[in-house]
Amino acid sequence: MKETPDFKKLFQPASMAVIGASSDKFKGGGRFLRGFIDDKFKGKLYPVNPAKKQVMGLKCYPSILDIPGKVDLAYIAVPSGAVPGVITECSQKGVEFAVVHSAGFSELGEDGKKLEAKLLKAVKNGKPRIIGPNCMGLYSPSAHINTVVIDHYPDDKSGPVSFIAQSGWVPHNVLQMGHQRGIRFNTAMSIGNQSDITLENLLEHLIDDEKTKVISFYIEGLKYASDFLELAKRATRKKPVIVWKGGRSNIGSRSVASHTGSLAGNNTIFEAAMKQCGVSIAYNIEELIDLMAAFTCPCLPKGTKLGILAESGGGAVAGADSAFEFGLDIP
Amino acid sequence: MKETPDFKKLFQPASMAVIGASSDKFKGGGRFLRGFIDDKFKGKLYPVNPAKKQVMGLKCYPSILDIPGKVDLAYIAVPSGAVPGVITECSQKGVEFAVVHSAGFSELGEDGKKLEAKLLKAVKNGKPRIIGPNCMGLYSPSAHINTVVIDHYPDDKSGPVSFIAQSGWVPHNVLQMGHQRGIRFNTAMSIGNQSDITLENLLEHLIDDEKTKVISFYIEGLKYASDFLELAKRATRKKPVIVWKGGRSNIGSRSVASHTGSLAGNNTIFEAAMKQCGVSIAYNIEELIDLMAAFTCPCLPKGTKLGILAESGGGAVAGADSAFEFGLDIP
Repeated sequence: MKETPDFKKLFQPASMAVIGASSDKFKGGGRFLRGFIDDKFKGKLYPVNPAKKQVMGLKCYPSILDIPGKVDLAYIAVPSGAVPGVITECSQKGVEFAVVHSAGFSELGEDGKKLEAKLLKAVKNGKPRIIGPNCMGLYSPSAHINTVVIDHYPDDKSGPVSFIAQSGWVPHNVLQMGHQRGIRFNTAMSIGNQSDITLENLLEHLIDDEKTKVISFYIEGLKYASDFLELAKRATRKKPVIVWKGGRSNIGSRSVASHTGSLAGNNTIFEAAMKQCGVSIAYNIEELIDLMAAFTCPCLPKGTKLGILAESGGGAVAGADSAFEFGLDIP
Repeated sequence: MKETPDFKKLFQPASMAVIGASSDKFKGGGRFLRGFIDDKFKGKLYPVNPAKKQVMGLKCYPSILDIPGKVDLAYIAVPSGAVPGVITECSQKGVEFAVVHSAGFSELGEDGKKLEAKLLKAVKNGKPRIIGPNCMGLYSPSAHINTVVIDHYPDDKSGPVSFIAQSGWVPHNVLQMGHQRGIRFNTAMSIGNQSDITLENLLEHLIDDEKTKVISFYIEGLKYASDFLELAKRATRKKPVIVWKGGRSNIGSRSVASHTGSLAGNNTIFEAAMKQCGVSIAYNIEELIDLMAAFTCPCLPKGTKLGILAESGGGAVAGADSAFEFGLDIP
């Protein structure tokens, strides 16, 4: 696996550029910028678009090279063919991280793979480190950044769960369903094709991240499976790790290939290896949320004995049957 | 099993009495009366309570015998000890059906069983036929009757599903969750202890009820199991029958005993017998709703091949995995 960077300037950037900024919030660049403004991002915000002088009330720059100050993080929402050129400029500018929202890379087959290789070659001197392409980026409530869910939350407090996904839809729904259940997140990320930054890098980071008490993933395919297992083994000694795997079935793995260009691999082997490392497996989004809720409970139960308090008889019967089927005992 | 009556005057009564009427809508008799008024029940409505002259703006009668006209259906919400006396009066009045909401009968052990036997003995000349005791009664949207869910629906249109349950909580939640899913009901009933009218009577009625396209049950215990199976066999030749059984586990069946005074029986035998009769089994409330939705779809699928239309890649992967695990094929 590639070296894991210090992610501080990704999760807590002092300045962000949106390259491909638009005043149409239904376009990627407009959606992100609108979100940063609405969420009251506290750092400096620079729209970049050679065709505009102002976007959403902010001064707009023709290129990232024209921005006067330093840029920690760039959100890139330009057509795929233009991405390598933009990345070269980000390198020249010394940008630390780039979230490449643009799709049309390895998920589209051979030509897309070539373009993704070109994107990586455009990185000079190791900067920027790339998240994506084909991703929705970051939810970091302490930094007022949320490009995962369009409408920001009235209550966007940080919490103990970190959730990393290759998909955009999954963290979007996990954030919404999780919030409804009372779960709060340290971060949630949609990392797409993993051209540079991979699940392994983020797992390595989260092991020692003090704000993260529960690590969780939606995985379509691992780039460095043996590294992941090694890191998971280390992680589960310190905190719970939950994995929901997409593409378990043949038809699911075909969908995976066209979604994030990943190879889903053999699920039986995947699961056995994960369990050996102490990872908890979720089989769908509801189970994922349930496990997050369970692992963030203030008191973990000491045994399998359960009491049920129910206002209704039918509810007590249904609860008792369900508890029994999950191996719980009602004395 | 006891004879199945013509249920017309239960589902479409021209007049109703609420015995134990109260102006406190948090008491049974107040709750029912409030519901009938709010739901704009179209027939005649008679509150009965010897201590009041008016309840909720309606003239109140000291006893059902003082009501001038005929009474088709009586809702009884008086303390359990007073129920047999009230039933005798209902018999004298010629009331067709009585819903006994009052609890404190066979679900409470030996003394309760004796009181329930006394209740049945109070019936003279076969009238009234009893629903309950220990039940919430009826949802019959075409008659504007709903004592199952406190707050009536803005859209309480009739539909093709009939649902009969021993519990009150289950139909309450089935109606609410079902409505959210777009399912509409011909009737839903909470029948409690089945002292007189049983699940078998209602199944026999629903087989030939033209408004019912799907028959569904929440069962805690059957009074006449072999009759039920015989009827289910007849019913499934005409329309789908869905059963969710409460008290499948030992602890669940203990809850059943204290809920509706039923014996839950051996679940393996129960399930095998149901399947032989062509009954579809649900294992929880969500599955019950899913089956109702499936059986009321306008076009039943002809095979196991499925297409998935999804806006998001992660949703397509999750859908494909889930479809595969349920034996569906995505060509």
